[in-house]
Amino acid sequence: MTGKATPLLAEAIRDIGTDVAALFDALLPVPEDPRARLVEAMRYALLGGGKRLRPLLVTATAALYGVDRSAALRVGCAIEAIHVYSLVHDDLPCMDDDALRHGKATTHLAFDEATAVLAGDALHDFAFEILADPVTSGDPFVRAELIQVLATASGWNGMAGGQMMDMVAETTTFDLHTITKLQQLKTGALLGASVELGAVLGRVPQEGRAHLRGYARDIGLAFQIADDLLDHEGDAEKAGKAVGKDAAAGKATFVSLLGPDRARDQARMLVDQAIAHLGQHGAEADLLRDLARFIVERDH
Amino acid sequence: MTGKATPLLAEAIRDIGTDVAALFDALLPVPEDPRARLVEAMRYALLGGGKRLRPLLVTATAALYGVDRSAALRVGCAIEAIHVYSLVHDDLPCMDDDALRHGKATTHLAFDEATAVLAGDALHDFAFEILADPVTSGDPFVRAELIQVLATASGWNGMAGGQMMDMVAETTTFDLHTITKLQQLKTGALLGASVELGAVLGRVPQEGRAHLRGYARDIGLAFQIADDLLDHEGDAEKAGKAVGKDAAAGKATFVSLLGPDRARDQARMLVDQAIAHLGQHGAEADLLRDLARFIVERDH
Repeated sequence: MTGKATPLLAEAIRDIGTDVAALFDALLPVPEDPRARLVEAMRYALLGGGKRLRPLLVTATAALYGVDRSAALRVGCAIEAIHVYSLVHDDLPCMDDDALRHGKATTHLAFDEATAVLAGDALHDFAFEILADPVTSGDPFVRAELIQVLATASGWNGMAGGQMMDMVAETTTFDLHTITKLQQLKTGALLGASVELGAVLGRVPQEGRAHLRGYARDIGLAFQIADDLLDHEGDAEKAGKAVGKDAAAGKATFVSLLGPDRARDQARMLVDQAIAHLGQHGAEADLLRDLARFIVERDH
Repeated sequence: MTGKATPLLAEAIRDIGTDVAALFDALLPVPEDPRARLVEAMRYALLGGGKRLRPLLVTATAALYGVDRSAALRVGCAIEAIHVYSLVHDDLPCMDDDALRHGKATTHLAFDEATAVLAGDALHDFAFEILADPVTSGDPFVRAELIQVLATASGWNGMAGGQMMDMVAETTTFDLHTITKLQQLKTGALLGASVELGAVLGRVPQEGRAHLRGYARDIGLAFQIADDLLDHEGDAEKAGKAVGKDAAAGKATFVSLLGPDRARDQARMLVDQAIAHLGQHGAEADLLRDLARFIVERDH
């Protein structure tokens, strides 16, 4: 994730990558007993790379409200742990059956299937352990709200619900409305939660978060359209994972429904709209603006 | 779970079964969209029976401190959702590959493997969603502490860690010390958390919970020894699941290490010890006492 990033964004991406890896490393030491293999699998999945887009959204949003970076990083690691657990389970043979993730062997191939199921489950808990820890926020109201936002975004009414719709999409032809709903859940719920968690840390009340939710909804859809376009153009080396799978599975995507040109226009329109939602903020929101633009311009 | 239960316990078991099922039913309506299949699988697993031992421990402990039953029931449902998600994943072909659970087809056979993975994941979130909801407790400090206790009990340093040790036990011969540690994590962590959650609801400070932790630790081990004995005696119909699997896998258990007679003695000693921990409580703890005795006398 370098390429067309502005200097501001490129620096933020470097920093979040370093900081997230260091914090995961510190939070999850390998125990010296037979659980070592489980924690090694969790670390393998957590430290395997990835753009750390969700932690970056948390820290960039929290920074708008002057939140201490170390608290925002912990919350970023929590949502990244949820994202990573979902990838570990998604890659399983009974799900997408993928061999590569970020250019490395998927967890069930590097370890074994049972360990991958368990490592995903333990990462799922790890996320909530981080949020529930008083170190994350001394205010229990903030901790409880962080957890409520994350659990809802990840469960049946969020990411997991979107994944179920995605499975149904293999045997049913969805229209654009249903594909939009699917993607708003499958990818959008966690991206939206990232921004929302930053606002919770900043003690922004519900009614003050509408513009952030709008921003997150728009970049979430733009992100998915960009993903579909990358999958359609199909460069597995850049993507670090298998590509062209949706078309092979006959699954409807934004690209199959709109065609690549209209899909690209739609993504750009969504980015403009996302940036417009940030109108009330000054230069302190430039990182979120750059990130929105980058999402559709990235080449992996 | 009737048989040798006292009238007090038999009534409590009937009530908790009814109340837990009714609350799950109310908390998890089936949505009218392609996520229906996911929620149906979650409901299939949740409403498939089971002794509801963990919710009973929550409500019985909470009752010691005069906690409102409806709050304790919600917390009981949360920990039961964690227990049920772990069973759904445990039964998967790559894990224990079981076909029966509570005398019914396991979730991956009633639905499919991918849906079972996803339903387990969504149940995992569902548990934290229930706890994070202000309806469970108006006090955010209580909500945050409930979540911290449950996430820790369920993750790598609790249940999931014990499951990993159990997998390692298939290829390594553990001694009694390591088997005890394994079982304290695999089964004991959630049973201990059930009692602890009841105490959190009752606003019992950490230092006032030592006797409850002692009670939970002892009944947890007694429960596992009783389970090993049932597995050793091997009546699949009563158990509602496959039996004799540990011996077939050459896995060390309390029964293989101690022999059935000493194992039975050990379980009874643990029950006496568990009951002794409740000495500071009067008749209001009779349900917890009856439950401790029942755990080693049950026939399934």
